Amino acid sequence: MEQLLVIKIGGNVIDDEVQLQQVLQQCAALTSPFVLIHGGGKLATQLAETMGIPQQMVEGRRITDAASLKVVTMVYAGYINKTIVAQLQALGCNAVGLCGADGNTILAHKRQHPTIDYGFVGDVDTVNTPLLAGWLQQGQSVVLAPITHNGKGQLLNTNADTIAQEIAKALSKNFAVQLLYTFEKPGVLMDAHDNTSVIPTITPSEYQQLKTSGKIFAGMIPKLDNAFAALQAGVQKVTIGQASELSSLIQQKSGTTLLNTESYG
Amino acid sequence: MEQLLVIKIGGNVIDDEVQLQQVLQQCAALTSPFVLIHGGGKLATQLAETMGIPQQMVEGRRITDAASLKVVTMVYAGYINKTIVAQLQALGCNAVGLCGADGNTILAHKRQHPTIDYGFVGDVDTVNTPLLAGWLQQGQSVVLAPITHNGKGQLLNTNADTIAQEIAKALSKNFAVQLLYTFEKPGVLMDAHDNTSVIPTITPSEYQQLKTSGKIFAGMIPKLDNAFAALQAGVQKVTIGQASELSSLIQQKSGTTLLNTESYG
Repeated sequence: MEQLLVIKIGGNVIDDEVQLQQVLQQCAALTSPFVLIHGGGKLATQLAETMGIPQQMVEGRRITDAASLKVVTMVYAGYINKTIVAQLQALGCNAVGLCGADGNTILAHKRQHPTIDYGFVGDVDTVNTPLLAGWLQQGQSVVLAPITHNGKGQLLNTNADTIAQEIAKALSKNFAVQLLYTFEKPGVLMDAHDNTSVIPTITPSEYQQLKTSGKIFAGMIPKLDNAFAALQAGVQKVTIGQASELSSLIQQKSGTTLLNTESYG
Repeated sequence: MEQLLVIKIGGNVIDDEVQLQQVLQQCAALTSPFVLIHGGGKLATQLAETMGIPQQMVEGRRITDAASLKVVTMVYAGYINKTIVAQLQALGCNAVGLCGADGNTILAHKRQHPTIDYGFVGDVDTVNTPLLAGWLQQGQSVVLAPITHNGKGQLLNTNADTIAQEIAKALSKNFAVQLLYTFEKPGVLMDAHDNTSVIPTITPSEYQQLKTSGKIFAGMIPKLDNAFAALQAGVQKVTIGQASELSSLIQQKSGTTLLNTESYG
């Protein structure tokens, strides 16, 4: 099977022009097509403030009312997505920028919660695998904004990590997928205060041991649980590390790679 | 050759939810793929005002400084483009929304003018015909925002009428193209004050007569000159009329159709 990279970059990269340029250079240098999923960064919050739209947070999560949805659609699917695509084009990489409504790429539903109304926040139902796989097989790389739709005309604000995971899982039917989660840290650390304590690889059984021993930083657990779920669903490798080291993450020369099976370890 | 509709809708349609919905219903009911190019409407100006970005007009044209470019990229390529796509999806039409940077669809250059600096305004150089034709031939309709790029990482604000014309001309190599320009009036009028005086068809020689007799409203002349230039460049028909009558414009039951050759008249 052809290799496919599904790369998630977070708000910290989006907000840092130099780091973003470094990441895009490494993407443009890839010899196979990729899917790049970007988060939002600070611009949406800043714009909402300028527009006088109060940002409501409940249990650390943003409530997306109609006015906030308009802001994130403008910022994520408009400004950030098109700025990234134009920069990739300048680097000779003919990418196309989409949100989940385009080509019905990602169908979602409004989040249901017993007590909290998250507003126009979407949880992913299905990925349009034939369309995406077709384009990727034609060599067309894709840049995805974290905006989806419900198929009934409603756009929905959707977590970029979740989108990356769902895209990686869906495309595993057609490609040997490596999912790259980039974040502030150089990988999964043995000691949260020591950036040199990166664990190079983790197998499912090692992960269970690390969890029971309480060695893994609690904040990493949901991320890693999701990553192992992606591996269970057919993704070949998940690598976690810093965006600036993208090329060496791909080659597993840095970051932490989560493996599907013990035999790889 | 397969038929292709290239449809331009203006700001007046974008600003009117009911009219926009009517137009999109007619687009979704089409049996062949289409390219829909949308203008901006009042939202960009409103957002710029809210953000405290002064809008500079020179000789009736907007100067696009860096802050204004950010606004139009957010509004046109983000909010308007994705709202249209989500609505088309809800109507069962699997469209994809793009700006000119996506897939290098429309390459442009910053407008050169001897005395006025228009800022980040782009004039079209080339259309990526193979990419667009390939998608359309696979049945994929396209919604285009009036934002292009220069291939060097710079997004550019570009006139939607011009984009429609250039797309129609470029795709004439692969399709029998009908270009539809929608605007406030029901067509080209014999008497600017009488909406029932629509001229059903105009051939090139009739156009010359109408121009010399001074019967055509001066404001229409640049639009019609461009339309006849598109016909010269291979577009089969150009129809001008109201967006709400899209289906009957296509069938030439309303509006004004400009014809390539005298024999059609």
